[in-house]
Amino acid sequence: MTEQKATNVHWHEGDITREHRANILGHKGATLWFTGLSGSGKSTVAVELEGMLSEMGVLSYRLDGDNVRLGINKNLGFSAEDRTENIRRIGEIAKLFVDTGVVALSSFISPYAADRDQVRALHEEAGMEFIEIFVDCSLETAEARDPKGLYKKARAGEIKNFTGIDDPYEAPPKAEIHLHSDQQSLEEEVNIILAVLRDRGIIKA
Amino acid sequence: MTEQKATNVHWHEGDITREHRANILGHKGATLWFTGLSGSGKSTVAVELEGMLSEMGVLSYRLDGDNVRLGINKNLGFSAEDRTENIRRIGEIAKLFVDTGVVALSSFISPYAADRDQVRALHEEAGMEFIEIFVDCSLETAEARDPKGLYKKARAGEIKNFTGIDDPYEAPPKAEIHLHSDQQSLEEEVNIILAVLRDRGIIKA
Repeated sequence: MTEQKATNVHWHEGDITREHRANILGHKGATLWFTGLSGSGKSTVAVELEGMLSEMGVLSYRLDGDNVRLGINKNLGFSAEDRTENIRRIGEIAKLFVDTGVVALSSFISPYAADRDQVRALHEEAGMEFIEIFVDCSLETAEARDPKGLYKKARAGEIKNFTGIDDPYEAPPKAEIHLHSDQQSLEEEVNIILAVLRDRGIIKA
Repeated sequence: MTEQKATNVHWHEGDITREHRANILGHKGATLWFTGLSGSGKSTVAVELEGMLSEMGVLSYRLDGDNVRLGINKNLGFSAEDRTENIRRIGEIAKLFVDTGVVALSSFISPYAADRDQVRALHEEAGMEFIEIFVDCSLETAEARDPKGLYKKARAGEIKNFTGIDDPYEAPPKAEIHLHSDQQSLEEEVNIILAVLRDRGIIKA
């Protein structure tokens, strides 16, 4: 757990609740946490899902590894400690979005199980929906795709601590959704996720 | 400027734009940045405004000093360096909300002009609305109110670096909105802000 530094702070309960905001929007907030190797297809599925949700009038927002690292987390690198802090901050931001009623689509490698479990715990303590989506594909497939040319650089030693090469990826043993991006179509993947959102009453059936 | 640590990152432009999300919501996003002494009435105005916006069907979210310090910024204290990082992160989170179409109500002492100007610049570079709201009242009034008993502790030396006592408050010379919480009613203050939101086309007239 991260140590609480500031003292003399207490939680402000506003007049407007999560329920009020859900009424404005016509749906609930939730965090959909995409995890998987670089090149596994996390962002591809998240972008497609975002488009479908938008057509349905559902407000969603994509928190993306690269985007977040250019903004709120620009002072973090890729050491194990910085990766953990990266995921912690993203988890806290996702919580703010869920509280607002937004469907947060977070799409990060997030290789360490302990970090993901920490974000899950943060949500569950607050009574918020957290849906872990494992975008699974073999390292061979991800490396063959190599959309950003990063595996090539990692193999050449130009990038250190690269997940799957010289840093571990800990697959989630009990993700709510397990996609196989090398066997399923994008449409199939999106439909699986939408069905879960309907089942849980996050979006309307 | 905060140094960019991670390399090999680039901005992902999603298919769904700010305009798509504004269409779902029926209004635009904006950051309303309340600044002023502890006890000046920032949170009181923000809470009242949040209630009014909710009645109007406008999705807003309050980022509050204490709340944020219990979550995303729990690893920050009150040194000048930590205060700057606190405000930087809040500014980046507010930007994510604006991008989502939400009216972000950030309510922090934010005593240093340079930090506020940095958040303003971040918004303006991205073509996002940033409205600085100076909640002005004399130190004497704020200290007499002392809703959290913090001035008393600061005078007794139990809290260090307390704004207005042993740390400076730099009043904004050109805030978009200048409220005087010791002369105006809460209703007057809220109406002034709503008029600016209508004038700028953020909410419907």
